[in-house]
Amino acid sequence: MEGEQTRIMVAVNQSTIKGYPHPSISSKRAFEWTLQKIVRSNTSGFKFLFLHVLVPDEDGFDDVDSIFASPDDFKELKQRDNARGLHLLEYFVTRCHEIGVACESWLKKGDPTEVICLEAKRVQPDFLVVGSRGLGPFKKVFVGTVSEFCAKHAECPVITIKRREDETPEDPVDD
Amino acid sequence: MEGEQTRIMVAVNQSTIKGYPHPSISSKRAFEWTLQKIVRSNTSGFKFLFLHVLVPDEDGFDDVDSIFASPDDFKELKQRDNARGLHLLEYFVTRCHEIGVACESWLKKGDPTEVICLEAKRVQPDFLVVGSRGLGPFKKVFVGTVSEFCAKHAECPVITIKRREDETPEDPVDD
Repeated sequence: MEGEQTRIMVAVNQSTIKGYPHPSISSKRAFEWTLQKIVRSNTSGFKFLFLHVLVPDEDGFDDVDSIFASPDDFKELKQRDNARGLHLLEYFVTRCHEIGVACESWLKKGDPTEVICLEAKRVQPDFLVVGSRGLGPFKKVFVGTVSEFCAKHAECPVITIKRREDETPEDPVDD
Repeated sequence: MEGEQTRIMVAVNQSTIKGYPHPSISSKRAFEWTLQKIVRSNTSGFKFLFLHVLVPDEDGFDDVDSIFASPDDFKELKQRDNARGLHLLEYFVTRCHEIGVACESWLKKGDPTEVICLEAKRVQPDFLVVGSRGLGPFKKVFVGTVSEFCAKHAECPVITIKRREDETPEDPVDD
C-alpha cells in the first residue's frame, strides 16, 4: 500500500551559457539524478514541485537596449521575464509529462536563496533537491552558492546534487 | 526498466538513553523516513548499506569495573564491543528483512564523522542518509554534530533527517 505521494521540490535555474529557456547543467543533473536514483520506475509514487526564482537584476544588460517610456513598457518587461522563466519550467514539466510523473511548477521573483527557503516552508515538500556546481572553496567565496544556503536554512531535508565532472564547463562558474 | 539498485548508505548509532542494542531516535527516524518517502513500495529498487561506527572511548565507564589482567581480557572487551554494535545493526537488518529490501551492514571503529566519510568514499553509495537531533546552534557547539560534518565532507550526496518534534527527549542532547 502506498500512502500519499512523496513531494519533491526541485529548485531550477537557467543556463549561464545558453540563457533562457535552457536549464543550467546542475539543475538538469539534479532532476535527472532524482528520477534515476529515487523515482526509478515508481512514477506514481512521486510528485515534483519545480520552483524557478527570477532574479530581478539579472536581465539588466538586455534592459539597457530597451526604452521605458510608459508604465506599459515596464509591464511588458515583467511579462517578458515571466515568459522566460515559464519556458524554463516548461522544460521540466515536459520531461515529467513524457515520463508520467506528476508535477507542478511556479515562478517567484527575488533572491533565490531566501525565496527557495521561504517557498519550501510554505509548500512543505518532503524534501528539496538543489543542484550544485561543486565549486571549490576559493571560487565559492566570489560567486556564493545557493545550495549551501538552502542546505543550512531550509526547514525540510535537502539533498544537494553536484554536476558530474564530465559535464563541468571550462569555467566551472558557468552552469 | 529498472537499472541497478539505488544504494543508500545509512549511518546508524545507539540510543544514548537505552544504550545498545537500541538504535538512537534519530537513526531510527532517518531509516523510517527513507523507507516511507523514498523506497515506498519499490522494495526491489533499493539496497540499504548500514554502517555503525563504534567509538572506542564511549564504553569507558563500564571498563572501569572490568579487570584487564591478560591479553585475552582485551580481546573479550573487543568482542563485547563488536557484539553490541552487531546487535544494533541487527535491528536494521531485521526491519529490512521484514519489508523485503536488500541490505548489508558493517561495523567500523573510530571517529564517526571521519569514518562515515571514508566509508562513503570506499563503498560509493548513491547517497548517504544521516539522522540529526536537530539541535540549535548553542547546543551544537558543545556536542558536535556528525550530520553537519558529513553533509560538508562526504563525496556523495547527503540527506540529513531531523527527529520529529514529538520524538525529541526532554534533554535534546539525548537521542
